[in-house]
Amino acid sequence: MPPLRRPLRMLAAVLLLLCSLAALSVSAEAKVHHHTWDIAYRYKTLDCVEKLAVTINGESPGPTIHATQGDTIVVTVHNKLETENTGIHWHGIRQIRSPWADGVVGVTQCPILPGDTFTYRFVVDRPGTYFYHAHYGMQRVAGLDGMLVVSAPDGVAEPFTYDEERTVLLMDWWHKSVYEQAVGLASDPLKFVGEPQSLLINGRGVFEPFHCSRAPNGSSDAACNVPRPAGCAPPTLFTAVPGKTYRLRVGSLTSLSALNFAIEGHSMTVVEADGYYVRPVVVDSLFIYSGESYSVLVKADQDPSRNYWAASHVVARERNTTSAMAILSYAGNDPRAPPPTPRPEGPAWDDVRPRVEQSRSLAVAHPDHVLPVPPRADRALLLLNTQNRIGGHTKWAINGVSLAFPSTPYLVSMKRGLQGAYDARPPPETYDYRSYDIAKPPPAANGTVASAVYRLALGSVVDLVLQNTVALNNRSETHPWHLHGHDFWVLAYGDGKFDPERDTARFNLRDPVMKNTVALHPKGWTAVRFVADNPGVWLFHCHIEAHVYMGMAVVFEEGVDKVGRLPKSIMGCGRSRTLP
Amino acid sequence: MPPLRRPLRMLAAVLLLLCSLAALSVSAEAKVHHHTWDIAYRYKTLDCVEKLAVTINGESPGPTIHATQGDTIVVTVHNKLETENTGIHWHGIRQIRSPWADGVVGVTQCPILPGDTFTYRFVVDRPGTYFYHAHYGMQRVAGLDGMLVVSAPDGVAEPFTYDEERTVLLMDWWHKSVYEQAVGLASDPLKFVGEPQSLLINGRGVFEPFHCSRAPNGSSDAACNVPRPAGCAPPTLFTAVPGKTYRLRVGSLTSLSALNFAIEGHSMTVVEADGYYVRPVVVDSLFIYSGESYSVLVKADQDPSRNYWAASHVVARERNTTSAMAILSYAGNDPRAPPPTPRPEGPAWDDVRPRVEQSRSLAVAHPDHVLPVPPRADRALLLLNTQNRIGGHTKWAINGVSLAFPSTPYLVSMKRGLQGAYDARPPPETYDYRSYDIAKPPPAANGTVASAVYRLALGSVVDLVLQNTVALNNRSETHPWHLHGHDFWVLAYGDGKFDPERDTARFNLRDPVMKNTVALHPKGWTAVRFVADNPGVWLFHCHIEAHVYMGMAVVFEEGVDKVGRLPKSIMGCGRSRTLP
Repeated sequence: MPPLRRPLRMLAAVLLLLCSLAALSVSAEAKVHHHTWDIAYRYKTLDCVEKLAVTINGESPGPTIHATQGDTIVVTVHNKLETENTGIHWHGIRQIRSPWADGVVGVTQCPILPGDTFTYRFVVDRPGTYFYHAHYGMQRVAGLDGMLVVSAPDGVAEPFTYDEERTVLLMDWWHKSVYEQAVGLASDPLKFVGEPQSLLINGRGVFEPFHCSRAPNGSSDAACNVPRPAGCAPPTLFTAVPGKTYRLRVGSLTSLSALNFAIEGHSMTVVEADGYYVRPVVVDSLFIYSGESYSVLVKADQDPSRNYWAASHVVARERNTTSAMAILSYAGNDPRAPPPTPRPEGPAWDDVRPRVEQSRSLAVAHPDHVLPVPPRADRALLLLNTQNRIGGHTKWAINGVSLAFPSTPYLVSMKRGLQGAYDARPPPETYDYRSYDIAKPPPAANGTVASAVYRLALGSVVDLVLQNTVALNNRSETHPWHLHGHDFWVLAYGDGKFDPERDTARFNLRDPVMKNTVALHPKGWTAVRFVADNPGVWLFHCHIEAHVYMGMAVVFEEGVDKVGRLPKSIMGCGRSRTLP
Repeated sequence: MPPLRRPLRMLAAVLLLLCSLAALSVSAEAKVHHHTWDIAYRYKTLDCVEKLAVTINGESPGPTIHATQGDTIVVTVHNKLETENTGIHWHGIRQIRSPWADGVVGVTQCPILPGDTFTYRFVVDRPGTYFYHAHYGMQRVAGLDGMLVVSAPDGVAEPFTYDEERTVLLMDWWHKSVYEQAVGLASDPLKFVGEPQSLLINGRGVFEPFHCSRAPNGSSDAACNVPRPAGCAPPTLFTAVPGKTYRLRVGSLTSLSALNFAIEGHSMTVVEADGYYVRPVVVDSLFIYSGESYSVLVKADQDPSRNYWAASHVVARERNTTSAMAILSYAGNDPRAPPPTPRPEGPAWDDVRPRVEQSRSLAVAHPDHVLPVPPRADRALLLLNTQNRIGGHTKWAINGVSLAFPSTPYLVSMKRGLQGAYDARPPPETYDYRSYDIAKPPPAANGTVASAVYRLALGSVVDLVLQNTVALNNRSETHPWHLHGHDFWVLAYGDGKFDPERDTARFNLRDPVMKNTVALHPKGWTAVRFVADNPGVWLFHCHIEAHVYMGMAVVFEEGVDKVGRLPKSIMGCGRSRTLP
């Protein structure tokens, strides 16, 4: 398809917008979906090893929420954790006109106390593949998460077709508790819990000692004599009818791990990323980072007389975690029959290049669904990601500031003008990019812990350029950054150090895809642009749970004076306890 | 000393009261003690095995608070637990005119949220040996506790003398987390965490595999080649100067275990129980139950050329827990030299008789310090303790009611008249004591879970008769019952089933000691009397942490309309969130 010229593109965009509004305006058909959730600890055996999980109505992960664009979701949360609070974020939902429902404890609400009930109510205004998960301390690690699928309304065509769809939620899993992990990270010296023991696909995995691999001839090998403990569920099963095409809505809510997902013998066509249609890309395997979602089309076009592995592998960190295996079973086969092939091993964990290349190839919008990017930014923040030693503790910092959540949620303190409830001094807009050496850890004592906020002009166009460096161990990690309250255009993934004069010209202003989560690759940079048009206070953070816990986040405020009356239910902590 | 006749006893009591008032009235000398505490998880190695503890300023147990009768204690608590709340109870302090400072989450306050600060302020109106500890879920198990010692004012003589004093805090300790323990107890079927791994004396113990026992000749035995891990502290050391007399203030804050405490080769004279002077009793070893405190006098009158074991052993449950060993070292010896004798083994765990007999022998007030007991009760509650299966869960119930803490603290909901915030239907006053068979577990489906309250007439005299039974496993346990807001007279410990007509005549109305915690022995009964003269809402419960968590508690209200204006700081949960 030849590139549309600019006026045509603008026209297409306007049409898209009108279609979108038309879809929303069918309000007679918009539904309200009520869910009632008990949040409680339960002993679970997700990877065949029993440990506590924070569950929703007894399950981890929780149920997939299904809705149609324009519907309203109402979730009544009963906290039954006994002594621990909670808060639930609706990842990818922009919460337009409901910023108090974003579920980020310390940013948009006080925690939900044990014995208390909190109701989230929000509109899902865009079709796409989203999530929900705890957003409080490191509680997400304990398994409080799930998927949220918003379908396009009937009669609104998507730029691809398929016969059926499935959700594929990818997670990682530790045998130690969140508390052991979090306290270790906050200790001096840092005490790392280590790599996760298992990966999970739709909440199921098998810790390596209990894996029963099969030789290619289908006979069990010697390792098969380790009996699986009680409660050890069989692998997740995806059934397929030969010849049909399946849309897999694949999402990652890992706490640490970057992943590679693949289905043995089947290519995948990537068609959606974080709720936006991408220019279709055929891949053998999908690299996916925590907080990202993709829809891939898979055609059941292989030998239907056998089953196939669907595998999730760790990449970007040394692979000390058991890969997760699901089974793709063609109809008619024994659905429990293991594939005749050995468990796949996945790509080399430390090969960065294919990951960067796939990120770039997926950063292009579907030609019929290009949303025009504002041609220039009103403000650009150049955000240096560093690992610092601050006051004896290992922290992550952005331009030298490691975020500490205040005890009064920003949304309350900023809307109500509570002086001193957060650090009023704004964080730095940039860093000394000319002389800074990103190949070296930051100088000692370079960093502070603060609850500072970037205040954005309502409606302004903002560029965020994330600059990676090496951590204190001289390695450079992959950080998936997630923006609350907005989607952004992905303008570029660059290598090395970003140079504003040189690299701004490389931004894709023609057909960038929009997303809400984007990878910052090792020793590279990533540039995104968004419009600060959603009154509220919004977190932007690395989606690795340990990293945001260690301060790898910034906070944006825009138009907080335009936010409607705050519900009393988000208050009750810090200085919001005694507000009239 | 011949017994005083009644008029003389009354006169003595009045004089005591006057002395007490005189001591309090020296207000010019009353001090205010300020403490600032950070409550946070830390990795600790209390018994040589590293695990998380909830600490005060980094330590578990926390610091001993020292004050003098009439002083005011102010403790500013910063909750730094990240996602978990807290609340701290001042065990043995009656909180006269400060019922909101009792620190029981769900009864007298809302929990203290992470990031929030709460200030406890109260007067210590009686000398004695007291405690503080978490009173929220099962959080006490995690190590948030310590001692609170209130001295008699200068010039007020105690009925015994000594040269120096020491505190001895006894605890038990698990390697699994509070969460694992609590969720297991709430699971269907119940999943028991098992006996504690270690006992602790002043926060130190040695898990059995790391115990390095010594042969009597002082050489190390074969077990000594297990190296102790880093952070493993030496045993608690008590130093003594030959010929001097020491007051040991011994307290137990075990979560489960009944204990026997002894110092090898040294007898102990018990002189105080829960803040009251007892008729002195010489014992070889002290049986002590969770929530109890005793002062014992120990004279350093043995061979001063060697050291001695001071040991804490489990009794009343099969001994699967490593005993704790401290060292009593005579001045001049190597304080680290292990005693030349093998570690003592303690009394038979299952010999109930000496325990009951010691309870009885210690239930008599010091003859010069008899506080006259009201001759009759206005109301008597006969409280049957049973273990029940309710709704698939194993619970403890009192007269068939298993207590569930409401999400709005009773003190707030009752003072402010919040209808429906707790179960208004009063719990039963008694049970069918004529026909009930205490040697059998209760019939199935016999029990409810409720937040019901006994409402007591202000100033009335109330008898509480606790009746033990056998649990679902057909064993009868020892339950130490602790009353908040009051002390009670200990009227009798009986065997078998209490018969009001027969056994009331056996009450000691002549010289009973007062206490705040009393043992209910296996298959027996215990009778106490108190005056409901402290406006507020007060918990009465088994001090075994698992048992109160499973509902083994009742709530008393008296004169809540007389309670002064409630501080806003105790509100913020349940229906108290939105109170004006």
